[in-house]
Amino acid sequence: MAQSANDRLEAQFAFLNEADRLKSVLRATTLVDGSRPENSGEHSWHLALYALVLADQAGPGVDINRVIRMLLIHDLVEIDVGDVPIHSANGLAHASVETTTAEAKAADRIFGLLPPDLGPPLRALWEEFEAAESPDARFAKALDRVQPVMANLRSGGGTWATYNVTYEQLEARVGSKIARGAPGLWEWVQGKAKPWFLKGKES
Amino acid sequence: MAQSANDRLEAQFAFLNEADRLKSVLRATTLVDGSRPENSGEHSWHLALYALVLADQAGPGVDINRVIRMLLIHDLVEIDVGDVPIHSANGLAHASVETTTAEAKAADRIFGLLPPDLGPPLRALWEEFEAAESPDARFAKALDRVQPVMANLRSGGGTWATYNVTYEQLEARVGSKIARGAPGLWEWVQGKAKPWFLKGKES
Ligand SMILES: [Ca+2]
Repeated sequence: MAQSANDRLEAQFAFLNEADRLKSVLRATTLVDGSRPENSGEHSWHLALYALVLADQAGPGVDINRVIRMLLIHDLVEIDVGDVPIHSANGLAHASVETTTAEAKAADRIFGLLPPDLGPPLRALWEEFEAAESPDARFAKALDRVQPVMANLRSGGGTWATYNVTYEQLEARVGSKIARGAPGLWEWVQGKAKPWFLKGKES
Repeated sequence: MAQSANDRLEAQFAFLNEADRLKSVLRATTLVDGSRPENSGEHSWHLALYALVLADQAGPGVDINRVIRMLLIHDLVEIDVGDVPIHSANGLAHASVETTTAEAKAADRIFGLLPPDLGPPLRALWEEFEAAESPDARFAKALDRVQPVMANLRSGGGTWATYNVTYEQLEARVGSKIARGAPGLWEWVQGKAKPWFLKGKES
């Protein structure tokens, strides 16, 4: 049975008001000026802007409008699960079974707030991002890995200092994902990041 | 003369790093839970999500992907000018000559950081938003006016209480803009907002 227009708006705003809570999820990364931890809401905005401005770094077949939509919703599950920093637990926590199970449950709840024609396609878009296999998802993942690098470089090391990250760990956890979705970007980012690690992590 | 690939990336990241400062521009509106003022970076994310989820409220001829791009960049000038609350200075500060002149100067500087093929089109998109004449801009403006209403309703009145706003002022400053870009939405929002004003602004 079709929803009434009123029930539909109630469901749309139940989701939009719930999404507001992403602004209170704090990340390990700080703002570029180092003044405070970044939250996952403003992080999602910044990444969508990355996609808009760095579109020419995407490979063939990438639909930037889809990438932007993907990035707008990619972290919503953190409302229930919190941000799991890439470099925490020696790089292992991020893709643990515990984390992915909890995130799937969060996706059920949060996308489930939406009307039935909107929730499932947005949930599928989030799953596509997580799988990181499609050209759109690979590019989105690459941007999600580049942005903290820029913040760390500007703020004196950031999470690299916090978690004692080596350049080899950066290559494995971050570089590989950037190179897969935006090879030209990784070449440039590498040239920026390497000197920080060679300097013996001065900050 | 064409920029080198390296100079181009330097310009793209000069813009993206500068954009980070929007996360430090505070608005008069709070988060939905009332815990702290909202910043303009996370506000821009939330509005892009509004466009994605409320697309069926847009009139004919509205391109939601363009609306999303518009909303991602609509507040960047606030990095230099700050947020001018809609209800401040008895509703007059928002569109004053001083504000619009300062915002145009900020747009020159901020969009001017980008490579020459990217800056001018994004600046034009911002101008289109400000003019609020095209169908895309009218819808974007409508969402920009709806979102603080939802935060005020959830947080016990918010900026309505701060600035002693009457229902007539809400209709003039907010309702007219929402009705122009998303009439069905204003009908629903009205039903939500009116009771707060009728209750004599209890909070
Ligand atoms: Ca992320």
